[in-house]
Amino acid sequence: MPTSRPSSRSTVSPVRPAVRAWWERPGLSYVDGRLQLDDTDLGTLAASAGSPLYVYSAARVRANLERVLGELQRRVSQGRVFYAMKSNRFLPLMMALRADGRCGIDCCSPAELMQARQCGFAEEEITYTQTSMSVGDAEILARHPGVAVNCDSRAGLRQLARVAPGRKVGLRIDPEIGIGYRRNPRLAYAGTRPSKFGILWSEVAAAVAEAQSLGLTIEGLHVHAGCGFLTPQLPVLDRILERLKAATAAVPNLRYVNMGGGLGIPLVSGDRPLDLAAWGQVVARHFGRAKHEVWMEPGDYLSKDAGVLLLTVTGVEQKKGECFVGLDGGFNLHPEPVFYQLPLEPVPVAQPGKGRRRRVTLAGNINEAHDLWACGVLLPEIREGALLALLNAGGYGSAMASDHCRRGAWREYLLWR
Amino acid sequence: MPTSRPSSRSTVSPVRPAVRAWWERPGLSYVDGRLQLDDTDLGTLAASAGSPLYVYSAARVRANLERVLGELQRRVSQGRVFYAMKSNRFLPLMMALRADGRCGIDCCSPAELMQARQCGFAEEEITYTQTSMSVGDAEILARHPGVAVNCDSRAGLRQLARVAPGRKVGLRIDPEIGIGYRRNPRLAYAGTRPSKFGILWSEVAAAVAEAQSLGLTIEGLHVHAGCGFLTPQLPVLDRILERLKAATAAVPNLRYVNMGGGLGIPLVSGDRPLDLAAWGQVVARHFGRAKHEVWMEPGDYLSKDAGVLLLTVTGVEQKKGECFVGLDGGFNLHPEPVFYQLPLEPVPVAQPGKGRRRRVTLAGNINEAHDLWACGVLLPEIREGALLALLNAGGYGSAMASDHCRRGAWREYLLWR
Repeated sequence: MPTSRPSSRSTVSPVRPAVRAWWERPGLSYVDGRLQLDDTDLGTLAASAGSPLYVYSAARVRANLERVLGELQRRVSQGRVFYAMKSNRFLPLMMALRADGRCGIDCCSPAELMQARQCGFAEEEITYTQTSMSVGDAEILARHPGVAVNCDSRAGLRQLARVAPGRKVGLRIDPEIGIGYRRNPRLAYAGTRPSKFGILWSEVAAAVAEAQSLGLTIEGLHVHAGCGFLTPQLPVLDRILERLKAATAAVPNLRYVNMGGGLGIPLVSGDRPLDLAAWGQVVARHFGRAKHEVWMEPGDYLSKDAGVLLLTVTGVEQKKGECFVGLDGGFNLHPEPVFYQLPLEPVPVAQPGKGRRRRVTLAGNINEAHDLWACGVLLPEIREGALLALLNAGGYGSAMASDHCRRGAWREYLLWR
Repeated sequence: MPTSRPSSRSTVSPVRPAVRAWWERPGLSYVDGRLQLDDTDLGTLAASAGSPLYVYSAARVRANLERVLGELQRRVSQGRVFYAMKSNRFLPLMMALRADGRCGIDCCSPAELMQARQCGFAEEEITYTQTSMSVGDAEILARHPGVAVNCDSRAGLRQLARVAPGRKVGLRIDPEIGIGYRRNPRLAYAGTRPSKFGILWSEVAAAVAEAQSLGLTIEGLHVHAGCGFLTPQLPVLDRILERLKAATAAVPNLRYVNMGGGLGIPLVSGDRPLDLAAWGQVVARHFGRAKHEVWMEPGDYLSKDAGVLLLTVTGVEQKKGECFVGLDGGFNLHPEPVFYQLPLEPVPVAQPGKGRRRRVTLAGNINEAHDLWACGVLLPEIREGALLALLNAGGYGSAMASDHCRRGAWREYLLWR
């Protein structure tokens, strides 16, 4: 369950101070008492489009891209960003990035590759890193020779060599160090125990030799060690990039290193935003003078805080002193709170007054006990019919949604401007 | 992750004895060295239909229904079974149950209700129990007056009373006792802490009075306290049904009690099948002489062991002494192993010989570290291209599947005979 429940604490807190909330920013704030995203009244939008409703801000995605791309290009001579579409593949959002023109796309499956191509991204603007490559997957990659494919195992090298002889490919390496939001084990993709991902960094030379014997040429190295890291985790990233750098010695004529994604955003009020300049210093320490290109594949960092999920309150119920607020959507719409312990920030669409706040549990409409959006969170008085916005819902929400209990009829809307 | 990994144990086990596996049964066994479900060679089926492929046995679903319906009707004078379609709503499977004619359908959302009606189930053959009822949900229920609706909160009663004045409804009660497979907290739907489900069993009289004041009539009581219970948990069921029975005193002219679902099946070799006669004795103790009807809503018990998920081995990779077997499908196809710690039994489609078995980790093709079907399981030597069957995949598999990483192109096939 998302957060710990209250035990013997009082369920009513003191009067709420009239300060701006930690999550407010230009483009996402209350205006005349109503929550707005990019000057759009979210209540009005939900009234026309219905609920449950995902709303995304193209402007915010672009601003996030600009911030990280700018920092990368200040630090290295040839920096490129590829958006990890697995975080949010909503077509209008991808078209907005295509129109923007400053990033490529990172794919992990043939169907993602097809979608990226249909959105107008050229093969040369696409990176592709998948695990457990099947014969069918390899055959599709063989028909897209310009895509920068990273193999994450020797079995993958063999699959590709059979159908794409002579192909230039990258190697995903396993740095044997994991990184992730608040040490969440589900978000660390590498560590002291072997993971399924990548060639062990200490075995890159052997893999390069095997690739050569298979007729493939290694032109790049890739690493992705976890998700959601913030400033306190940068020393871990430093060690990961150190190993990536060390591995480059085994690859003659290296065209690129790809640092993967994993850059996090604040999810709760205690989180501080990632210090991007500090991140840039870590990158520069290892690749500031590199002659090869330096790539990265952010997903959440571009999409997560650009999206909100709007739900309607169905009822309020007291049970044994606990206040349950029912909503018209459940964990099938966004699995992160229940299954990854990654919170979404609940915010009333109608700005609350200075009244008391109450500790509540936000419950979804799926017939499973763990279908709770948040437990023991402080919210102002909220009534049936009110709209609630769950912030930071733009990444790994709709992309992972299911039709469980046949409750999969959510809507999505991109604010394009 | 599904099961604990090996630590310092040897990764190779002694010669495999030539005994039948714990999961073999008439209708699911090796015949001439090939795994068959209902006399159908699963390898041949996968070769024509492709992989990943779910295969379901209509005969097994019917046999499961017959077993539990027979036991129920031996124990009570008026017993009825409603299949919980949320466990598996594949249309041909539901049509097979419609053709069979011995059970109704249990729904939990308007879209499920629509589908049940389209499969030919009359309103009087449908039970409906949802949580967090919205205005829109209630309006759809109002247009289906014959459906046996259970409200699980006072807010739900108010929603329904507004749009369906005078309706006869049931109450879902919260027995404040949970039950589930191996005490898995995700599967217990009630307990000492309040859950979001149901009217507290001690407050049924007050809810009946509130319903009356709203113009509704209570005609039934419903309880569902958890999933996957086996014989060792029957004493807990006994206490739950005792509370259900106690609550009936508050309802004049009771038409039915509904005991929900939750009957489990063996998932690993140590599990013994639920002793159905012992279950029947528990039911009879409380409702053997009841004049009202006694209903139940099994889902997994009908569908789970009737389905297998077929996947193809993409490659075998050694990493730091751990053997990773890659498969062409991941946790998005069936979330129970990763997110519920409910194992699927991996079985090669080609019968293994008496050679050594090896401890392996089965990895999916989703770019997430926890996408592992099983860790440290003993399997015979298995090679790229081989087919693996994951048993007991018929419930809460395809029904909860997602298109994460755009890997949602699974197939489903019902063996109808």
